[in-house]
Amino acid sequence: MEEQIDLVGKAFTDHYYHLFDNDRPALSSLYRPSSMLTFEGQKILGVEDITAKLTSLPFDQCQHVISTTDSQPSTFAGGIVVFVSGSLQLPGEEHHLRFSQMFHLVPIVEGNFFVQNDIFRLNYG
Amino acid sequence: MEEQIDLVGKAFTDHYYHLFDNDRPALSSLYRPSSMLTFEGQKILGVEDITAKLTSLPFDQCQHVISTTDSQPSTFAGGIVVFVSGSLQLPGEEHHLRFSQMFHLVPIVEGNFFVQNDIFRLNYG
Repeated sequence: MEEQIDLVGKAFTDHYYHLFDNDRPALSSLYRPSSMLTFEGQKILGVEDITAKLTSLPFDQCQHVISTTDSQPSTFAGGIVVFVSGSLQLPGEEHHLRFSQMFHLVPIVEGNFFVQNDIFRLNYG
Repeated sequence: MEEQIDLVGKAFTDHYYHLFDNDRPALSSLYRPSSMLTFEGQKILGVEDITAKLTSLPFDQCQHVISTTDSQPSTFAGGIVVFVSGSLQLPGEEHHLRFSQMFHLVPIVEGNFFVQNDIFRLNYG
């Protein structure tokens, strides 16, 4: 079971950042009206406003490189908390930006999740 | 309600790191048999093993300085996810260590929570 959780967390993380880096508007498929995003301290509620925020960030291209992914079952039946650390490379920037992000995934149907909670922070030295 | 969540998250965070830095064995009061800690990738289950891990870290004294605290209600009735970034100062070390940590707090009774999920990572440049 523990291994299963890790696999789901890693698969979700790979999928999430692949969409972010290659087809950012498609991230809307991962959120719901109840979803919450806190992005660098800014609170955003619901799939529409979250998608608007993510697609209007001041860079069009980016590449996420994941360093660590830690997953645990949450108390919510079948839910998973996923904690990611990594770096974000922006075009024309010599140095990458370190970030940490957590997701609380809630099951829709067997093996299919949406993001209920999403908190993103850049890590400054 | 949103403000209330922030206040609870900040109050918890202050309490947690105050205990960590001043009375580490007392952290056991915040965990339960179902609690999970992932510490730098190591998975630990239950209040006893978590307390044993936290009190056997290879430093006796430390000081956490919190940079950011972000809180959101989780789907679990009354639960809260808290995401912290900050730095950890160890005695004799010139440089502090940057860390990120998330907690999933679950209510026991009104205004009283235990830590169901705890994931800690140092942030390396």
